[in-house]
Amino acid sequence: MNSFPKLIAFDADDTLWANQPLFDDAEEELRLLLKQFGSDEQINQTLIDVQTENLRLMGYGAKGFMLSMIEAAIRLTDGAVRGTQIQQIIDLGKELLRFPINLIDGVEEVLETLSAEHELMVLTKGDLLDQESKLARSGVGQYFSHVEIVSEKHEAAYRRILSRYHVEPADFLMIGNSLKSDILPVVNIGGQAIYVPYHTTWHFERMAETGHPNGYVQVESIRDVLGLLQALR
Amino acid sequence: MNSFPKLIAFDADDTLWANQPLFDDAEEELRLLLKQFGSDEQINQTLIDVQTENLRLMGYGAKGFMLSMIEAAIRLTDGAVRGTQIQQIIDLGKELLRFPINLIDGVEEVLETLSAEHELMVLTKGDLLDQESKLARSGVGQYFSHVEIVSEKHEAAYRRILSRYHVEPADFLMIGNSLKSDILPVVNIGGQAIYVPYHTTWHFERMAETGHPNGYVQVESIRDVLGLLQALR
Repeated sequence: MNSFPKLIAFDADDTLWANQPLFDDAEEELRLLLKQFGSDEQINQTLIDVQTENLRLMGYGAKGFMLSMIEAAIRLTDGAVRGTQIQQIIDLGKELLRFPINLIDGVEEVLETLSAEHELMVLTKGDLLDQESKLARSGVGQYFSHVEIVSEKHEAAYRRILSRYHVEPADFLMIGNSLKSDILPVVNIGGQAIYVPYHTTWHFERMAETGHPNGYVQVESIRDVLGLLQALR
Repeated sequence: MNSFPKLIAFDADDTLWANQPLFDDAEEELRLLLKQFGSDEQINQTLIDVQTENLRLMGYGAKGFMLSMIEAAIRLTDGAVRGTQIQQIIDLGKELLRFPINLIDGVEEVLETLSAEHELMVLTKGDLLDQESKLARSGVGQYFSHVEIVSEKHEAAYRRILSRYHVEPADFLMIGNSLKSDILPVVNIGGQAIYVPYHTTWHFERMAETGHPNGYVQVESIRDVLGLLQALR
């Protein structure tokens, strides 16, 4: 980081609020529900296989996850699973669409401080209505001037958004918990990025941390963002 | 319509390409699949009931529709439906995420003509990735400068988009097949609208046509848009 950004964007899930732990809990419930049909390892692997097949068609988010859980149950049981059990899976999934939002420690302080002087953006991927609903439930929507929800956070998506807001990559700062989606594509197009790892990372977002390439800063807590930005003034 | 618009936006499903007929076909398949469990009328009503309950949580689009079809099957069979049948429903739904796009007659001519001189927008609701994929499959993506996918097409959504593009409502023209989503909210905020009815309308978009209120123009074919706009020059 070398200059004060004109546009500061935050990832949402596991950056502003806890999200992955709720999906992890749903998977734990799924394993309990299906335990007569396979070991934990078999259930996990079947779910990953189904998700791998479905992601390109269904994209990210709770609805695709529900459908993949259902298909995994059908596959594990050779089609013998009953409607009543499928309904339990659907009910698990519906909880993922309405759980109360728990902000990550320090988020409100950071947003309140930065939004007093800067326009902030939420930039997230997933299901449109689901992400809007989480932002509304979070109680921090008022700190954001802009909300952008995309189907995939690759370089082209970042370029499209920066072009829409007439911001040069060097004037853009992205803050998030996913190296794959929040940090590397932004660094690759010449933007600035702050990586705030979260204690759990979704299977499909995991990537090996290969040393510490240039171009982004890693911090322990989102609170550290304030000090980093202060130092650029 | 009284002045030439600065921003021309098109709805997508059943305005640019056929969409509802494919959902109607999927419902027909569902009735066949479940015929031992209920009459056509019972199946239709159960699906509408489940969708009514789910729409607020799941929003529009094929993934929510798949989940509602599954829940309707569970409800109709008192939980007795088997995984193999649920998989058939999921496979029906997956077809809705990848069917080849059939453009409505006249669409390509209208888009080609207008895009030569004007910036065009696609403005649609539904699942993000699904709508992006349909636009890519349609082969007419290159005519659009802007793509906006929203979770609901109400007045606030139109106001937010117009504000983002710095366009006054009076300078905005929306073209679409849904009075409820494309026409009335636009007219209500002072925009211009052209209503191009399609031969079938989704249950949740239907509304009584109460005479012909001021503020929008109804045409038979999307081709008529060209003549209407020509007359404003």
